[in-house]
Amino acid sequence: MPQLTRGILIAIEGIDGSGKSTLAKNLSLSLEQQGFNTTLTKEPGDSQLGKEIRTLVQTQNIPISGHAQYLLFAADRAQHLSERIIPALKENKIILCDRLADSSLAYQGYGNGLDLEMIKSVNKWSMQGIPIDLTVFVHVPVEIALERCGKRGALSPYEKKEFLHKVADGFEELYKNRTDVIIVDGTESPENLNKQVCSAIEQWIKNKNLLS
Amino acid sequence: MPQLTRGILIAIEGIDGSGKSTLAKNLSLSLEQQGFNTTLTKEPGDSQLGKEIRTLVQTQNIPISGHAQYLLFAADRAQHLSERIIPALKENKIILCDRLADSSLAYQGYGNGLDLEMIKSVNKWSMQGIPIDLTVFVHVPVEIALERCGKRGALSPYEKKEFLHKVADGFEELYKNRTDVIIVDGTESPENLNKQVCSAIEQWIKNKNLLS
Repeated sequence: MPQLTRGILIAIEGIDGSGKSTLAKNLSLSLEQQGFNTTLTKEPGDSQLGKEIRTLVQTQNIPISGHAQYLLFAADRAQHLSERIIPALKENKIILCDRLADSSLAYQGYGNGLDLEMIKSVNKWSMQGIPIDLTVFVHVPVEIALERCGKRGALSPYEKKEFLHKVADGFEELYKNRTDVIIVDGTESPENLNKQVCSAIEQWIKNKNLLS
Repeated sequence: MPQLTRGILIAIEGIDGSGKSTLAKNLSLSLEQQGFNTTLTKEPGDSQLGKEIRTLVQTQNIPISGHAQYLLFAADRAQHLSERIIPALKENKIILCDRLADSSLAYQGYGNGLDLEMIKSVNKWSMQGIPIDLTVFVHVPVEIALERCGKRGALSPYEKKEFLHKVADGFEELYKNRTDVIIVDGTESPENLNKQVCSAIEQWIKNKNLLS
């Protein structure tokens, strides 16, 4: 059984319909099969507070301002960190997080036009400075992502073509020239994607000498 | 009837039990009697979203992290600004706000030990850079404030002596050497306090040439 010398925080990022939630679940199963202890989590809404924040955002009659919406997501992130991520890091687990701080940059920053530097700074603070070790970016063309979303049922307010293009461009901008981001093609089969990312994670762990 | 050339944003600040809520209400009535249009508002929880955030904070079984709590208050502030303060400023009203950004600095910053610079920066951003024109600080010794709180019923988690001393010291620190803060003695009668602050506000309006 492989034992890690510390916890590893991995963010799985991408636009709605990219297949990142499926990938996160598959990765968790595969890594567990390899003998790693994993925690599968997500943003927004994985803590009890986060769930209630998510409901709050979805049920308002009066539109929530962009600033307020981002700050609610940041509050969810802060709680998520203290309730789920920090304890799992202490147990030397691999934490697979379906969306994390960069989603706020892409959606609220690039998508909604809020100040990017402010979001970066609050993201960092809400995560108490804990770094994301590795990011997996699942890239898919907006049109394919929207087609997938449509098949799931009614589209959410985020699942609009023009908006999602801004978000997708935001992710591209964020992840260009980065060595801590694994970019994968979300049009491949879930099985291929999982195999590819799973071995990339295992390779990364070896390269970093994180096996005891 | 006095007409203002622009809206005026006034924060009424102080520790729990200082009498600031009573003062805010009395000021609103008196200024209305002088012919001014006023809006009486408060933080946290004056917008619909804010009310729900307040309930959320009060009803969690799992403790909310300090970071998450501040970010929830900041979200409430952002919504309060867009829903209540900005519209009232556009109508050239006097907005009397029972607590505003400085309460976060005093309670979450000085009281709970969160980073002051971060709170200042998020406070400013959540208020979209709109400045507070005038602050009224109602000063009372912590012991008197706690005695008053006790008479109202069960003490809230904020109404503890040691904590409230930190908050009170924080307010003192924030308001020393400031020309935009009216400091008043909260042990005076509500009538005296109201008269004193009401004429200070009217004088400030005249000095700033804000009457058309």
